[in-house]
Amino acid sequence: MANEHPADIAAALQQTEPAHAWSILREAAKPRQADIFGYLALDFQAQLATIMPRADLAAIFVEMNADDRADLYKKLTDEQREALMPALAQAEREDIRQLAAYEEGTAGALMTSDYASLSPQLNAKQAIEMLRHEAPNKETIYRAYVVDGERHLLGSVRLQDLITAHGDVKVADLMERNTHAIPVNADVEDAARKIARYDVIALPVIDAQERLVGIITHDDALDVMEAEATEDFQRLGTVTKLDSSVATATVPMLYRARIAWLMLLVFGNIFSGAGIAHFEDTIAAYLALMFFLPILIASGGNAGSQSATLMVRALATGDIRISDWGRVLGRELVVAILLGLSMAAAIAVIGVFRGGPDIAIVIALSMVVIVIAGSMIGMLLPFILSRFNMDPATASTPLVTSIADATGVLVYFSIAKAILSLP
Amino acid sequence: MANEHPADIAAALQQTEPAHAWSILREAAKPRQADIFGYLALDFQAQLATIMPRADLAAIFVEMNADDRADLYKKLTDEQREALMPALAQAEREDIRQLAAYEEGTAGALMTSDYASLSPQLNAKQAIEMLRHEAPNKETIYRAYVVDGERHLLGSVRLQDLITAHGDVKVADLMERNTHAIPVNADVEDAARKIARYDVIALPVIDAQERLVGIITHDDALDVMEAEATEDFQRLGTVTKLDSSVATATVPMLYRARIAWLMLLVFGNIFSGAGIAHFEDTIAAYLALMFFLPILIASGGNAGSQSATLMVRALATGDIRISDWGRVLGRELVVAILLGLSMAAAIAVIGVFRGGPDIAIVIALSMVVIVIAGSMIGMLLPFILSRFNMDPATASTPLVTSIADATGVLVYFSIAKAILSLP
Repeated sequence: MANEHPADIAAALQQTEPAHAWSILREAAKPRQADIFGYLALDFQAQLATIMPRADLAAIFVEMNADDRADLYKKLTDEQREALMPALAQAEREDIRQLAAYEEGTAGALMTSDYASLSPQLNAKQAIEMLRHEAPNKETIYRAYVVDGERHLLGSVRLQDLITAHGDVKVADLMERNTHAIPVNADVEDAARKIARYDVIALPVIDAQERLVGIITHDDALDVMEAEATEDFQRLGTVTKLDSSVATATVPMLYRARIAWLMLLVFGNIFSGAGIAHFEDTIAAYLALMFFLPILIASGGNAGSQSATLMVRALATGDIRISDWGRVLGRELVVAILLGLSMAAAIAVIGVFRGGPDIAIVIALSMVVIVIAGSMIGMLLPFILSRFNMDPATASTPLVTSIADATGVLVYFSIAKAILSLP
Repeated sequence: MANEHPADIAAALQQTEPAHAWSILREAAKPRQADIFGYLALDFQAQLATIMPRADLAAIFVEMNADDRADLYKKLTDEQREALMPALAQAEREDIRQLAAYEEGTAGALMTSDYASLSPQLNAKQAIEMLRHEAPNKETIYRAYVVDGERHLLGSVRLQDLITAHGDVKVADLMERNTHAIPVNADVEDAARKIARYDVIALPVIDAQERLVGIITHDDALDVMEAEATEDFQRLGTVTKLDSSVATATVPMLYRARIAWLMLLVFGNIFSGAGIAHFEDTIAAYLALMFFLPILIASGGNAGSQSATLMVRALATGDIRISDWGRVLGRELVVAILLGLSMAAAIAVIGVFRGGPDIAIVIALSMVVIVIAGSMIGMLLPFILSRFNMDPATASTPLVTSIADATGVLVYFSIAKAILSLP
């Protein structure tokens, strides 16, 4: 166990029961216990916290990073919190209470207060000396933040630049001034996207008075981006927010995350049913039409799913913006016409064999119209949702399919009725 | 322009025509030109390269990071490559040719050769002195790699630890030995996932003889993870690999990425059509059954889409492994039964009003069976695909929906035939 990376040990421990995990973890030395503990999922940490002796939990708690500690603190019961507090120094207690107070999903809730800060009057040599001493307690000293007496953020300086500079040069002359800070109540995904965009190791977080209150580090940004992608993924499949990972989600959690959309879509599909009922006479007169119904309506839904998937992800990554909708619409229309024509040609062949030329014309024409309609619905819905400040991923594939289905029923039977002169 | 971050300027330039972008970019000082150029998308870089004067391109090329340079090199024509080569030093030419030779999607193709290396015999003071001189040409000096005379990777040392150590301590005594290196031909997504898992700034890349050949940095890992999520996303919506971003994809690119799956699914839906044709007599005898057809088959598809979405993402992030299938199956079955019962209760009410108690029983029973079948298909398909070394995301929502649709048709009409004693 001594040579393994703490992340690997944590992953292995999570495969076991909490009680068993603790019986293994307790064997490690205290600082290493905290290392491994920090890599465990928050849910699992909370489970362990309920079974570990208070003294052991306090010892690990003291060693944890400020941001991880605040996250765990939020998961503890009042009783557990009170039992832990005496083990911490006054300053740490304040820090935890402050970090834990920020709303979930904001930069404040993700940031750590373990950052390195410097005064602009220091010279490079003094600055390095300061950072040497602070290093063991800071998440990163590779970028130090330069603040004035009231902790207003003035800029930032890279350790690399301090080292390569002459020892007498002032920090004020080495620092970059346009440090991209974000407000403490900013969305955590915006913060992560900024870190990705500027390729930085960390991003400073400031309060309303532009005072430095914390930093968000690159590894936390990576976790946020991954969680965000998972959330969008699930939303696109009409699974609403799961409070836990899929691996550890319970039956009630999964039920709650799935039932609402399924019910809603049942009622959405009543429109398709009503459409079919409306054309009952047409169907009765020409029952062979039913053979092509699933193919036609599914094609509209499938084309729409493709368009929606492309748009939802492109809007989420910032690859496409709402204002681009006109340009994207024109291109989508051309693509949809080409797709519709190709599929109409394929289906017409089957139509000739199964129902003769009349049927072939009906289904080919229906196919073109349905694929174009489906694609337009799939493309526009995410833009419309964004426009009204809703998550574009709400334009889930099942929702797009439901709308395209109902449209398909109407288009198909209307065209059939007209061309085949049916009742 | 002078105070903006190069990433922001690059983003703005990409909104314009390449010729216009170059007319703006040429105004900047040379090193800043290279900075901004490095943040442009590879496609856009290649477009600019064709219209820039050779001398300007060469000047930027020299200043670029080794990995970005090799990527651009691959995109250039033979003629352009030859024109650039004289501007580069012998060592740089070799480096580019070597980096450009690695296959796309491997660690070798993503890595940079701009890493800092140290000999284990150096002491901390000498090591810092060496890194000071190398810093301007290296992507990161925050972690330096310790190699022997034949460049075998011995370990790595953090700049932080060099700085906090006493000047006389040997690098050999400061370094971590279990540096998680990856082979040069490893999958780039594995490399990215390792960086995320171990929260490191960079990962060393080694050849078959365990010699250090490059490093992959955390910012590149972030880009890889984002690209991977996008690819999975699109595959789940049956869009095959796009060679370009959605924003800049052309009509033929989008057509190619979409047509194959749409055609395949048309033929998949013939099974549903054939199912309906098979039950033509049943339908003719009780045309009211058609009203509920869209609701029932869509519900199976929707429940299946949810299950597939959850599994595809969980398998991709490593949250769930293939060996977990049995445990997940049991849980899924319980959830599916609960979902099916809830939806059956809802739909039965409509059934009583529209067709009487007999119809209500038929559709309620069908709903339970169809939702369970759809959920099982959606859950198991990603596991089966993984088992045969295919991407689980091939179990796209439209594919699951198609299979669930055909199953739904069979279940519904079989149950109706039996209970209503239809022909």
